[in-house]
Amino acid sequence: MRSSVRPAFSCERTRHSREHGRADSTMTATDNTYDVIVVGGGISGLSAAKLLKANGLSPVVLEARDRVGGRTFTVQNKETKWVDLGGAYIGPTQNRILRLAHEYGIKTYKVNEQENLVHYVNGKSYPFKGSFPPMWNPFVLLDFNNLWRTMDDMGKEIPREAPWNAPHAEEWDKMTMLELFESICWTSTVRQFAKLFVNVNVTSEPHEVSALWFLWYVKQCGGTMRIFSTTNGGQERKFLGGSSQISECMAKELGDLVKLQSPVYRIDQSGDMVVVETVDKQTYKAKYVIVATPPGLNLKMHFNPELPPLRNQLIHRVPMGSVIKCMVYYKENFWRKKGYCGSMVIEEEGAPIGLTLDDTKPDGTVPAIMGFILARKCRKLSGLTKEERLRKICEIYSRVLGTEKALHPVHYEEKNWCEEEYSGGCYTAYFPPGIFTQYGKVLREPVGRLYFAGTETATEWSGYMEGAVQAGERAAREVMCALGKIHQSQIWQTEPECLEVPALPFVTTFWERNLPSVGGLLKFIGASTFLSVATAAGLVAYRKGLLPRS
Amino acid sequence: MRSSVRPAFSCERTRHSREHGRADSTMTATDNTYDVIVVGGGISGLSAAKLLKANGLSPVVLEARDRVGGRTFTVQNKETKWVDLGGAYIGPTQNRILRLAHEYGIKTYKVNEQENLVHYVNGKSYPFKGSFPPMWNPFVLLDFNNLWRTMDDMGKEIPREAPWNAPHAEEWDKMTMLELFESICWTSTVRQFAKLFVNVNVTSEPHEVSALWFLWYVKQCGGTMRIFSTTNGGQERKFLGGSSQISECMAKELGDLVKLQSPVYRIDQSGDMVVVETVDKQTYKAKYVIVATPPGLNLKMHFNPELPPLRNQLIHRVPMGSVIKCMVYYKENFWRKKGYCGSMVIEEEGAPIGLTLDDTKPDGTVPAIMGFILARKCRKLSGLTKEERLRKICEIYSRVLGTEKALHPVHYEEKNWCEEEYSGGCYTAYFPPGIFTQYGKVLREPVGRLYFAGTETATEWSGYMEGAVQAGERAAREVMCALGKIHQSQIWQTEPECLEVPALPFVTTFWERNLPSVGGLLKFIGASTFLSVATAAGLVAYRKGLLPRS
Repeated sequence: MRSSVRPAFSCERTRHSREHGRADSTMTATDNTYDVIVVGGGISGLSAAKLLKANGLSPVVLEARDRVGGRTFTVQNKETKWVDLGGAYIGPTQNRILRLAHEYGIKTYKVNEQENLVHYVNGKSYPFKGSFPPMWNPFVLLDFNNLWRTMDDMGKEIPREAPWNAPHAEEWDKMTMLELFESICWTSTVRQFAKLFVNVNVTSEPHEVSALWFLWYVKQCGGTMRIFSTTNGGQERKFLGGSSQISECMAKELGDLVKLQSPVYRIDQSGDMVVVETVDKQTYKAKYVIVATPPGLNLKMHFNPELPPLRNQLIHRVPMGSVIKCMVYYKENFWRKKGYCGSMVIEEEGAPIGLTLDDTKPDGTVPAIMGFILARKCRKLSGLTKEERLRKICEIYSRVLGTEKALHPVHYEEKNWCEEEYSGGCYTAYFPPGIFTQYGKVLREPVGRLYFAGTETATEWSGYMEGAVQAGERAAREVMCALGKIHQSQIWQTEPECLEVPALPFVTTFWERNLPSVGGLLKFIGASTFLSVATAAGLVAYRKGLLPRS
Repeated sequence: MRSSVRPAFSCERTRHSREHGRADSTMTATDNTYDVIVVGGGISGLSAAKLLKANGLSPVVLEARDRVGGRTFTVQNKETKWVDLGGAYIGPTQNRILRLAHEYGIKTYKVNEQENLVHYVNGKSYPFKGSFPPMWNPFVLLDFNNLWRTMDDMGKEIPREAPWNAPHAEEWDKMTMLELFESICWTSTVRQFAKLFVNVNVTSEPHEVSALWFLWYVKQCGGTMRIFSTTNGGQERKFLGGSSQISECMAKELGDLVKLQSPVYRIDQSGDMVVVETVDKQTYKAKYVIVATPPGLNLKMHFNPELPPLRNQLIHRVPMGSVIKCMVYYKENFWRKKGYCGSMVIEEEGAPIGLTLDDTKPDGTVPAIMGFILARKCRKLSGLTKEERLRKICEIYSRVLGTEKALHPVHYEEKNWCEEEYSGGCYTAYFPPGIFTQYGKVLREPVGRLYFAGTETATEWSGYMEGAVQAGERAAREVMCALGKIHQSQIWQTEPECLEVPALPFVTTFWERNLPSVGGLLKFIGASTFLSVATAAGLVAYRKGLLPRS
């Protein structure tokens, strides 16, 4: 067992950045004047500032909270050692965040998925292996297979960088995911699961989100399998010591260029320099500003001149999802002894939690189960006390895992992200119907000397830590391009694969590709029946001499 | 013709307020300390402050802009005399705003509707009289009649004060209006008109808004006829001299209790007094705060302590509609000479404008047509120059009115409300699917010593000037109740009818109530056909002796 309560951060092991450049700044940082002001000290803002500094520029990061990390938030205490109350999971194809972690010597470990997962539905537990619960009813199986295939096929038509240019963009954006599911799915079993799939992935309801947006979201994460899987998917791993370390290491590297408790309330770009004022009554000046907040939090700032009409309206139209992340701690890891890995997929309206994962430390200490209270359930249960939520959570764990032991936690941690003024919710912003096609284009379009970062502006793993890095570094390069330091063609960069976390392709089977949908099957049965009857009738008629014989 | 360019405001004629009370304040206004700070100097905030002052309290109004009036905005110049670039129309049942106007001696006049209105559809103009264009195809007529009847019937199930408690609240809130129209309407003619109906009333698209919310919105305006009609409806009248006079008169009455150019960026209720800070670096203190902004603009403020989770998320979920209000001025009132009153209902995707009304002054001077660029068209045409928009507008007016004269304007005024940082859009906030049931309850729920006004929190004519007054006065009474000055039962008050602007009931005809829907007709035809065939077959069988005779 580790002896220190708070693991020593690995920043000391910092290697030189690969993009490290000349150290001279083009502007001194006296008089609160910098080359670039970065608003927001989450992963996106910090990775922007890091890259700017490495290229010899002087950035300053203004962070509203008294900590860096934004929607990642690692807490240390004796009961948990450390616990990620915010963004935590990483997996293959998330190569930028893995590159940062590697640079700072932060290790990853695999979330336990050795034993059975369990699917709880209609009041019963069904153990299973793999990414999705198996379906046994043949109609349901066809329907389920067709759902994922259809969503992935639709996703293929949607360009990552410009989803509003998809051939069916307008049509799909007018639909909610609920409407799409109603048109794709034949069985209520699959519709129910589809609802959970939206709840889990974007902490909102199928009727709240644009179908175009959600299909794009799944696609830019690599498809339905990549986004939902633990092994070989978005939840494969966690950072040893917690995800906040990434931000803390970047902040340490930036030193006093990171200003905490500095919420920005005013951005004035009417003069030679952009002037930024904070609630703690400081004034900063810079040539450029990178706004690295969720789009909706741009509203916390008063702009001079006003934002252009579409951006002014966009930022009122992109709400953040709703989630309470809940960690229940137990004396012993009783679920693994029962043959369960700790992953539960829970379909029951009365259950607070929709999805769980084992949150035990990789050395087997501090047994815990992580669970999400999602979307409608989050809003409903926000009014309860912490103790009431814990009780309800333990009750459902006890029913799903079939043991009284789940009723006796030794500790509980939770974080309701809906109450965070400077996040607005978690994990990410969603687009209600109609907004993606009408306002999407201006998401990362610069406004004068303002550039936009934040995971919502990413084109790969937007909504995740990976997207935050992509967006932050892209915005930093946009500013470098504006300063004439790089060519426009260098703004967008691909990332080599992280060798320690290789991505395996998801290979679909012949049957997955070719099984009919329920509708297709019924048509086939209908057509076969018709043809059989017609053939039989023809034969009878022929035999009876009712047809003319030439 | 009037001799003065800017008509003398009528505030001089101010009568004593009916609710005028004792003049002593319970707190001095030295040191920027007041009883109540009102955030927002639109009609809602000002009417709150007015009522508080009349009851012997000391309010201060902090207004972000350099003018009062919020979403009402009257401009004076030599070309127009005066023009309402924002909210302008009032009508019967809007008794609170009419009471204020009467108090200040501000006169109303009727929008011209003497000659024919015109409905432009499929490239042709159809003159008509009445609120809605007539439909000649019998199927379309049944479909059209059934649409309004169904919407009004559904509205009757929705409580004004608590629409989330409607029997079908959850079901209807999961649907967009587009989905509802697809389920109600049989003909594309009616579906298209229904789209325009949403565009015109709430400056957003049917696929963007919750069906529950839109049905509630129409209901709390008095139904489909009241909301859409000029005569006897929401657009019956305008204020002579412009709607801003209401706010200006209230502001004049409040004197230096109204602070312009004072955008609030911070509200701290952690101490004994609530502390409010403005971008112009002033600090105000008070016992209570009334926030009289659109809900989404609460985001312009940094709160200590943070808002509760549901309110923190609500304010990211209620975007403002999209509209450009456009006034085209002509040398002469050529449309009336051609037998048109100036009202055009325009259904053409390529036309910028969806609805027009005559905007000529009541004495016949300054001939003008007011038109709205709505929702999707507003976003599309925001990128054009003012001149390009004018040209497109004149082109469609020329086609609809069938005259070259429309191509030769003498002046043009427009206002794109999407660009206004401190409105976020116009006319009002809309609720995307799923939000009304999950977050509606907290719309006007106080947060500590913060109370909420603004037309969005009203229960009669929410979205209109009338709703602004209702909400402002209600919030003022909530504060008076908190201060022990009135009983809780006095917070909500009804308003006697304005005698000069009486409301006539909309009486439905027997046929409007009893004509079948298209679906109903088809079922009837189907059933009749079946019965006729069955009867005929029975008769034949009987005659042929195929039935057993007992």
